[in-house]
Amino acid sequence: MQTTPGTTDSASPDSAAYAPTDRTIPTRSADRASYDRATVHAILDEAYVCHLGFVRDGAPVVLPTLYGRVGERLYVHGSTGSRPLRMARGTSEERDPGLEVCLTVTHVDGLVLARSAFHHSINYRSVVIHGTAHQVTDPEEKRLALDALVDHVVPGRSADSRPADTKELAATAVLSLDLNEVSAKARTGGPNDDPEDMGLPHWAGVVPLRKGHEALIPSEDLAPDIKVPDYLLEL
Amino acid sequence: MQTTPGTTDSASPDSAAYAPTDRTIPTRSADRASYDRATVHAILDEAYVCHLGFVRDGAPVVLPTLYGRVGERLYVHGSTGSRPLRMARGTSEERDPGLEVCLTVTHVDGLVLARSAFHHSINYRSVVIHGTAHQVTDPEEKRLALDALVDHVVPGRSADSRPADTKELAATAVLSLDLNEVSAKARTGGPNDDPEDMGLPHWAGVVPLRKGHEALIPSEDLAPDIKVPDYLLEL
Repeated sequence: MQTTPGTTDSASPDSAAYAPTDRTIPTRSADRASYDRATVHAILDEAYVCHLGFVRDGAPVVLPTLYGRVGERLYVHGSTGSRPLRMARGTSEERDPGLEVCLTVTHVDGLVLARSAFHHSINYRSVVIHGTAHQVTDPEEKRLALDALVDHVVPGRSADSRPADTKELAATAVLSLDLNEVSAKARTGGPNDDPEDMGLPHWAGVVPLRKGHEALIPSEDLAPDIKVPDYLLEL
Repeated sequence: MQTTPGTTDSASPDSAAYAPTDRTIPTRSADRASYDRATVHAILDEAYVCHLGFVRDGAPVVLPTLYGRVGERLYVHGSTGSRPLRMARGTSEERDPGLEVCLTVTHVDGLVLARSAFHHSINYRSVVIHGTAHQVTDPEEKRLALDALVDHVVPGRSADSRPADTKELAATAVLSLDLNEVSAKARTGGPNDDPEDMGLPHWAGVVPLRKGHEALIPSEDLAPDIKVPDYLLEL
């Protein structure tokens, strides 16, 4: 059951691009869309949380959550009692029905100020993934997924922390979502004012948003002989 | 039709808190939930994009989009041809059916590194809103909404740009969503390692993420006599 990350229906993982589908071809600004695999991976790897959408009692639910990527497969985790995890697990009559999801990742890179109100925008990069998430039941894949989740927060971190024990593993459910039906979208550059507005007396340009992190805050109870590890200095 | 921002069903806008519902009481970490109106407004006002979820052909769709707030009402906008806008408008047989949505806003404030992999987390603040979005048909409310959208990107900006003209207004559709069924959730502080892990030799603490913006980038074609306005210096 889906234990081979990289197996996709619509495009070979070795190909450079995802195959567009009805759901991943945008109705607007199609020139901003991309199906390039490396572009999609880079956007996914840079963000800290995704927004996971699913349908519950006919209504949409969108929750922010951590995730990790291993090749062509994403993982999200949660308590075994959480709603999306329970829904993906199914009932005893209906094993592993999966959960139809839309997983979206967005970076806001800058604020775009135009002379005209209409052309105000943001510079962004986003990835939208449609598909069916399945519960990960293979213990080896579950461990791999949890390592990926920790390494997504800080690359290299999973090797420098105590791995989950049997009790923690049992309390954690993991969903997998294969990268099949995927698109990226991005806006870059300055404002696109109409020619007749160029003489208006309003400042126009881009406010780039800050990235990166501030100074680390060690735990109050951290032993004084524990130095900041290299992978954090490189963050 | 919904032309009075602030009219809510489940709680008076004058009350300090939103009334919890089945959908806004979390199954997990209920101690992190809040229904405080000022807390919710502050989280909404600080973010640049929301993630708007809706159901299309039975499947979830989650799209990042700009938004604005006026009192107890949120506005999102888009092309009159965009899918969620068309869906909210309905057909000639079914006028103004609205579109059931879940609108989520998330700030990632810091990365939480624990001694144990299991307790890795992020510090975040999020707001989740459930409700039915309706198309704004009143011209006056539509203008107010578009001003709110621009001022959400940069407070004070709508007064310093050319307002939308008739053609631009006609090409833009606006959805409103009242703040009725709303919850906030937040995690703050350091890692919550188990007592037996405190002696492990792993660095533990928080990596605070940077906020704010880098130096402004004026448009290449900006007239040299146009100075940076005060509201941008205060950003």
